[in-house]
Amino acid sequence: MNAHDYAKQVLAGGDVSQVYWVACGGSVIDLYPANCLINANSKSMTSAIHTAAEFNTFPPAQLGPSSLVVTCSHSGGTAETIEATSLAKDRGARVVTMTNRAGSKIDNGEWPCWVYEWEDDTPQSARPAGFSLTLAADLMAAQDGYADTDALARGIDQLDGINAAAKPRVESELGPLFADLCKKHDFLYVLGSGPDFCQTYGFAICSLMEMQWQNCSYINSAEYFHGPFECTEDGVFYFLQKGSGANRPIDERAERFLKTHTDTLMVLDSAEYGMANVDASVRTYLDPIFFYEMNVSLRGVRGKAFGHDPDVRRYMGIVEY
Amino acid sequence: MNAHDYAKQVLAGGDVSQVYWVACGGSVIDLYPANCLINANSKSMTSAIHTAAEFNTFPPAQLGPSSLVVTCSHSGGTAETIEATSLAKDRGARVVTMTNRAGSKIDNGEWPCWVYEWEDDTPQSARPAGFSLTLAADLMAAQDGYADTDALARGIDQLDGINAAAKPRVESELGPLFADLCKKHDFLYVLGSGPDFCQTYGFAICSLMEMQWQNCSYINSAEYFHGPFECTEDGVFYFLQKGSGANRPIDERAERFLKTHTDTLMVLDSAEYGMANVDASVRTYLDPIFFYEMNVSLRGVRGKAFGHDPDVRRYMGIVEY
Repeated sequence: MNAHDYAKQVLAGGDVSQVYWVACGGSVIDLYPANCLINANSKSMTSAIHTAAEFNTFPPAQLGPSSLVVTCSHSGGTAETIEATSLAKDRGARVVTMTNRAGSKIDNGEWPCWVYEWEDDTPQSARPAGFSLTLAADLMAAQDGYADTDALARGIDQLDGINAAAKPRVESELGPLFADLCKKHDFLYVLGSGPDFCQTYGFAICSLMEMQWQNCSYINSAEYFHGPFECTEDGVFYFLQKGSGANRPIDERAERFLKTHTDTLMVLDSAEYGMANVDASVRTYLDPIFFYEMNVSLRGVRGKAFGHDPDVRRYMGIVEY
Repeated sequence: MNAHDYAKQVLAGGDVSQVYWVACGGSVIDLYPANCLINANSKSMTSAIHTAAEFNTFPPAQLGPSSLVVTCSHSGGTAETIEATSLAKDRGARVVTMTNRAGSKIDNGEWPCWVYEWEDDTPQSARPAGFSLTLAADLMAAQDGYADTDALARGIDQLDGINAAAKPRVESELGPLFADLCKKHDFLYVLGSGPDFCQTYGFAICSLMEMQWQNCSYINSAEYFHGPFECTEDGVFYFLQKGSGANRPIDERAERFLKTHTDTLMVLDSAEYGMANVDASVRTYLDPIFFYEMNVSLRGVRGKAFGHDPDVRRYMGIVEY
């Protein structure tokens, strides 16, 4: 089963009017680009994204048979996400879930479940971000005449090569600087915008807080001048994820200010690491996949420098909560 | 002119199918509760909220004559928000804006503009959060048979008394602790969830980063266990905004963990400061107004302790950006 088959299965139930992407932490992050793609391109569907506990507490009033709910639990055991999937099914919505663990609690036969691999060599087309973008594009192709499905598929395939070439470069060109700045600062701000913002958030809460116990904050570059920039001064560490797509001018505006108002700025420009070669019609929505892979590289370099393996946890899956 | 009149004016153009709330920083924060209210209660409308630069870069494909776009620029001069209002008008959407400054750039005669007061004694019903909630409820009363408009109006009126009683209590019971913890820690995490999350974000980016140059981060309590909690340990400062509404169990779960995994926790429970007296049908959406006023109190106490007037800026409205 792949995203195209799921799209056909979903559409067999009639047109979709609402798509809800529901998960937690790293899993909800991966669904954000597809959410953005639909809202910017579909006249027939609205799309919304929710952390699962909020979805369960505030289920959308429109949730029903005209809705598609896509959930994801990487571990397969996320209680809130299983509850959300069940709630959506009870409301008559079409439901699709995905997990890395075959036979886990969410892979229980009650709804279609796509089990994905998550190995270093798993292509992006077979990971949740690629799957959800492809599913969204197929729904829009059927309902809205969306014309960029082929460009999107080509872009997703290109990402494997772009990331493979970029990772060692980022690890050597930015990794040591990042680790050194983390040693010199207890705290940093991560900035990004548009669809990339999911990986701004993801770098902060997953790669740094969860996997490195590194205190940090995440700022949307579009909001930077509406409050957060007042903290900027020499000695405050900022890391800007500079997008290659439609949101690039938003990031560039933040960059211009940061360059002249702090001496501690690190910029990762996806355009300089291969993303400029992706078709402009879809590049904006594929940039987050690039940033995810670079987040993995940067946390890996930091982890080695600090002797803190990114796989180590002290609470998650270990204590009761 | 008031929110009821605006609602009638909007509805005179036919049913509304989409509501977009668009602003930046503190102004977009105030519109978030109304966005949540619609999505949880309306079958006839979807609602979405955008920071203005992203709205302009990625205008929703559904934006058009069936849409209402509500914008707000407190200063009246926010370039992105003026551009968003103009873009929405060009797409044929019904447009309403609001500002604190009569005759400012956004109050230009091109669209309906509500000029609000922002004095200490301005009632909540005459501020943007109250206005936008009332507007949302009136639209839902007309289109969805929403039955809680009276309870909402009563709750908004109750808030003036609740806040007046709570502010001196919070200032004396939590203010000195907060200021002292800020002196002892370079950084803190602010937690909250549901509609309150806008004021979690707001406390971080407006009250602390902008007005106190205090480094901090903001975490949705619903996401806390999916990454961020791995940073929790003695000596790391957490401030939990504990909601009184439907999202309270989400905050309580975070509180239980925080109480046993850090020695530096401050909790502000809105239920203990009067919010428990507001009708349960609407309390969830009024909690953020309570938290906003307590944010003002806490930043004021901190400001005095640090000799840092919350009105001081070094960049905003001062340098070019």
